[in-house]
Amino acid sequence: MPHVSIQYSPQLDDSHDMGALCHALNEAIVETKLFPLAGIRVRAFRADHESVADRHPSNAFVAMQVYIGQGRTLAEQQRAGAHIYAAAEAFFAERLGDAYFMLSMEIFENNAALSWKRNTVHPRLKDENKSSH
Amino acid sequence: MPHVSIQYSPQLDDSHDMGALCHALNEAIVETKLFPLAGIRVRAFRADHESVADRHPSNAFVAMQVYIGQGRTLAEQQRAGAHIYAAAEAFFAERLGDAYFMLSMEIFENNAALSWKRNTVHPRLKDENKSSH
Amino acid sequence: MPHVSIQYSPQLDDSHDMGALCHALNEAIVETKLFPLAGIRVRAFRADHESVADRHPSNAFVAMQVYIGQGRTLAEQQRAGAHIYAAAEAFFAERLGDAYFMLSMEIFENNAALSWKRNTVHPRLKDENKSSH
Repeated sequence: MPHVSIQYSPQLDDSHDMGALCHALNEAIVETKLFPLAGIRVRAFRADHESVADRHPSNAFVAMQVYIGQGRTLAEQQRAGAHIYAAAEAFFAERLGDAYFMLSMEIFENNAALSWKRNTVHPRLKDENKSSH
Repeated sequence: MPHVSIQYSPQLDDSHDMGALCHALNEAIVETKLFPLAGIRVRAFRADHESVADRHPSNAFVAMQVYIGQGRTLAEQQRAGAHIYAAAEAFFAERLGDAYFMLSMEIFENNAALSWKRNTVHPRLKDENKSSH
Repeated sequence: MPHVSIQYSPQLDDSHDMGALCHALNEAIVETKLFPLAGIRVRAFRADHESVADRHPSNAFVAMQVYIGQGRTLAEQQRAGAHIYAAAEAFFAERLGDAYFMLSMEIFENNAALSWKRNTVHPRLKDENKSSH
């Protein structure tokens, strides 16, 4: 954890580097100091088809769903969410001045009783961290 | 809000205009009169791989997830859901007569305390609406 | 039900047959004896962009979301989840020995009051089952 799954309008690939958005969100997650680096999985999916609002051809959306594990207070989740979302707003700053853009983010907390995982990056980053001290 | 995220079997792009499905759902959402036009984001994602039921090559699925904001009663959500889902059934009417089709839809209500958004289409549509009166 | 929606790192298509993963999960779901074959919809989506952990180029993730209908106990869900997840671990066994892999799965239970569906595969498989006895 956390997972960030982004869905976005296909035309955004022409104007924006959506891989750079993923990196910006990754960095923002690290900056919250609430999640281990080894658990960060940000990914983005270009829609194959869409129909947005009044179907104006300039309309574009970016919808982010964040899934986190249990164990953080609501206040911590809100602080983390606000920081991650702010990074997305900064990334799309010039689009927020036009009249055709929709940005959104929600956080969902997973149920530990119905979650399974295996992460082999965790021990590697722990080892690298130790050997650099 | 609302968001409609559709996942579907890759072969459906050969037989159906999945962009037209997105438009049909957009219209159905407007018809419910429960959601602002400026908030509608319908999009569809073709699966890269799949394994459906008995793996008959004619099997195809369309799975719709609808995310809405808080503030509507369960009865309103059920009425809206039934109307939007009916539009999808109408779109795939001829497939409902064969024995290889799976259509589904679920509504999820977002938690306002863990949601962030910015929508620049809202003020534009409000202005356009005003100036046309 | 159930639905399994898989998101994965793009480079995995070079090293793994992700369609075969879908089939392996389909089989594992059948083996649990908790879900009807006709309801199984496993599908996988390759990310268009990603930023994973420390951004090491070997990093790869596979994230599985399982959506099921109501009517099973938590213990049944946990038993089913463990079995399905074990099939994914077996599929990626050789990756679990390196230090760049992240596998995860969560189960979500849908709310029957906000679900709609039509499945024309169900009656076919029932008929085929009858005629084979």
